[in-house]
Amino acid sequence: MPNDFSHTRTTGRLADNREIIFFDRGPGEPRLIHDERDLPAVSTASQLRFDPLLDEWVTMASHRQERTHLPPTDECPLCPSRKGRRTEIPAAGYDVVVFENRFPSLATSAADPGAGSPLIPRRPGTGRCEVVCFTDDHDASFASLTPEAARLVIEAWADRTAALSAISGVEQIFCFENRGEEIGVTLSHPHGQIYAYPFVTPRTRAILTAAERHRERTGRSLFADVLAEERDDGVRVIGSSEHWTAFVPAAARWPVEVHLYPHRRVPDIPALTGAERDDLAHSYLDLLRRLDALYDRPLPYVAAWHQAPVHADRDLAYLHLQIFSIRRAADKLKYLAGSESGMGAFITDVLPEDVAQRLREVTP
Amino acid sequence: MPNDFSHTRTTGRLADNREIIFFDRGPGEPRLIHDERDLPAVSTASQLRFDPLLDEWVTMASHRQERTHLPPTDECPLCPSRKGRRTEIPAAGYDVVVFENRFPSLATSAADPGAGSPLIPRRPGTGRCEVVCFTDDHDASFASLTPEAARLVIEAWADRTAALSAISGVEQIFCFENRGEEIGVTLSHPHGQIYAYPFVTPRTRAILTAAERHRERTGRSLFADVLAEERDDGVRVIGSSEHWTAFVPAAARWPVEVHLYPHRRVPDIPALTGAERDDLAHSYLDLLRRLDALYDRPLPYVAAWHQAPVHADRDLAYLHLQIFSIRRAADKLKYLAGSESGMGAFITDVLPEDVAQRLREVTP
Repeated sequence: MPNDFSHTRTTGRLADNREIIFFDRGPGEPRLIHDERDLPAVSTASQLRFDPLLDEWVTMASHRQERTHLPPTDECPLCPSRKGRRTEIPAAGYDVVVFENRFPSLATSAADPGAGSPLIPRRPGTGRCEVVCFTDDHDASFASLTPEAARLVIEAWADRTAALSAISGVEQIFCFENRGEEIGVTLSHPHGQIYAYPFVTPRTRAILTAAERHRERTGRSLFADVLAEERDDGVRVIGSSEHWTAFVPAAARWPVEVHLYPHRRVPDIPALTGAERDDLAHSYLDLLRRLDALYDRPLPYVAAWHQAPVHADRDLAYLHLQIFSIRRAADKLKYLAGSESGMGAFITDVLPEDVAQRLREVTP
Repeated sequence: MPNDFSHTRTTGRLADNREIIFFDRGPGEPRLIHDERDLPAVSTASQLRFDPLLDEWVTMASHRQERTHLPPTDECPLCPSRKGRRTEIPAAGYDVVVFENRFPSLATSAADPGAGSPLIPRRPGTGRCEVVCFTDDHDASFASLTPEAARLVIEAWADRTAALSAISGVEQIFCFENRGEEIGVTLSHPHGQIYAYPFVTPRTRAILTAAERHRERTGRSLFADVLAEERDDGVRVIGSSEHWTAFVPAAARWPVEVHLYPHRRVPDIPALTGAERDDLAHSYLDLLRRLDALYDRPLPYVAAWHQAPVHADRDLAYLHLQIFSIRRAADKLKYLAGSESGMGAFITDVLPEDVAQRLREVTP
C-alpha cells in the first residue's frame, strides 16, 4: 500500500485566492481556514522565451524583482499568524503547510506575451510555484526535524506531485529546498519549494537522452547500473538502508554532492511505498545531519528531487535526490564562473572519494 | 591581412619552467627574461571523469584547493617585480603578459588517473591554463584601457588561441575574464584566463548541435539568423559599428547579458582581420564602460569568448563574445539555486528589452 501514514489534509484559500494546504499529523478534523488580510491580486507576468542556441526555454518573471528579501525574524511570512501580525499562514500553528507562492515564477494565470518570432518563440509562463513550510518553528531546519515530521513532508511532496501533475500543460514537478543565504535564500524559515514546469527541464532532458541511449545499447537502466556500480565499489557510499543508498557520484560536479537513490526504480515520489517513505525519512535526516556536521556551521545546499516528467519517459526515469553545496572549505565557496557558466565545463577542487570519507566519518 | 598591429613578442620560462609570453606595443628588441625565484615544480593531479548521466566530462583538480586567495595589494603576483619582491612577472613593467597558471585545472603533464570503469571512465586532465595580464597597472580594469592597449590584448588572445590549438589533444580554446569578488575572483589585478580543453565543452556542443539542425532545416547559419533578427528588430541592440553588433539576446538567462558578434562569420579570434580587431577594441571598450555605468560600482561579470572547436564544426561555429553578470539590482545578486543548478531551467527577473534600453541610455 503506497501510503499508510496517518495525517489530516485541509485545503483552503488565502485572501488573494491562492490555494493553501495544511498537512497535520494524525487523524483529526479538517481545519477552518480564514485569511483576514487584505491582499492585492497576484501579478503573473511570466513568459517563456525560446533560446535557439541552446534549444531551451528561459523563464522571465520580471514581476519578481521586488519580492520579499530577508525580512527580520519578527516579520517572517512563514511563521504562524499571531494576533496583530498576520502572516502567509492563517493559523496559530501547523505541522506542514503548502501554499501558492505570492511571487511565482510560473502561474496558471500567466498572461500571453505574444508568439515572438519563428526563431525565438514566446509563450506564457504557465505552471505553478508552491512554498512548502517544513515546520512552524522558525529556528529549526529540515535536519532538526523528527523522523515523523520529516515523514509528513514526504507525504506533502507526494500529494503535491500528484496534484500538480494533473494541471493541464504541466510537464515536470520539481520538489526542492534552497538552504542558506550563501545561495541567495531570502527567507530563513525552514521551507522548500515546488515548481510545476510547462516543459521537461534541460537537465532532465539531457539525463533521459543518455538513459535512452544506454537502454538501446545495453537493455538496462542507466540509473540502476550507476547505483549498482557505486554500491559494488563502495568507496563513495555514505550510507545504505533497506530501501535507499546515498553516495557521492564518481564524477561529482560540486565540492559537496550526494545522490540518494531508492533500491527500486520508481518514476516519482508518489510511487514510493509507505515502507520506502518511512525509510527515506530516516535516511534523508541522517544525510542532512552529516552534511551539517562537515563544517562548524550549517551547510548551504540545494536539495533537488529528480522525478520523471509527467508524460514523457516515465518507464525510463528513476527517482533520485541530488543534494549539493557550493561550500568547498570551511571559509571558501565554489563560484560558478567562466568555465562552468560560460562553457558548461565543471571543474572541481575536491575528490569525491575524499568527501565521501569525510561524510562517513562525521558524527551526525 | 589578418594582423597589422605592431608589437613585439618575447617568450621565456619562469623558474619552474612555466612558459611566459610578453606582448609589448610597437617594434622593439625582444626582452631578456630571467626569473630569480626558487619555485617548486607545478603539481598537476588533474583528471577527467565522465558523468554518464549528463554525458559530460568533469574536471577534478584537487591540487587547486590551496591556491592564492585575495592577497593584499602589495603581494599581488600579477604586478611587475620590484627589487626585493619577485612576482610571477620577472620584469619592471609590461604591456600585456601571458603565462602558464601556477595552479592549473588542466596541464599537459597531468598524471594518468587510471581508466576508471566502462560506465564512468577517467583520463588525465590534459590541456593548458594560462593567465593573461591586461596591464601592469594593478588598479586599472579592462574598461579603463586605451583602445591601443585593448587592441594588444586581442592580439594576445589571437596568438594564444593559435598556439594552444596546436597542442596535441586540445579540442577547444576558451579566452575569458572573470571579474569581481562577487563571482569568486581571487586576484583583483586586471587579468583574464585562457583554458585549452581536451574536449568540446558541453555548452559549445549543445549550441553546435542546434546550429547543425538549423542548417539541415534551412541551409543557413543559426548564428547569422539570430544576429540578423536582432539587428532588424533593434529593440535589444546596444550598439553597432562597421564590423560588430552588441545586443541583449531575446532569451537572455542572466540579469545582465550581452552578446557581441562580428558581422562576418569567422570561427575564432585568429581569423579576424586587422580592421575587425581594431573595431573590436573600440566596441568592446564601449560595451564594458556601459556595463560599469549601470550601477554605482564596477559590475561583476564573466566575459566569455565562444570560439569554434579546434577540429570539429569549424565551418558551423560563429565567433562571438558572451558577457554576463549576476548583479540583478544595485544591491542584489542573482544566485543559481534549485531551478538553475538542479534542473538547468533558468529563471530571470529582468526583461532583456529593459536591460538593453538602460545600456543604451547610460553614459559610458
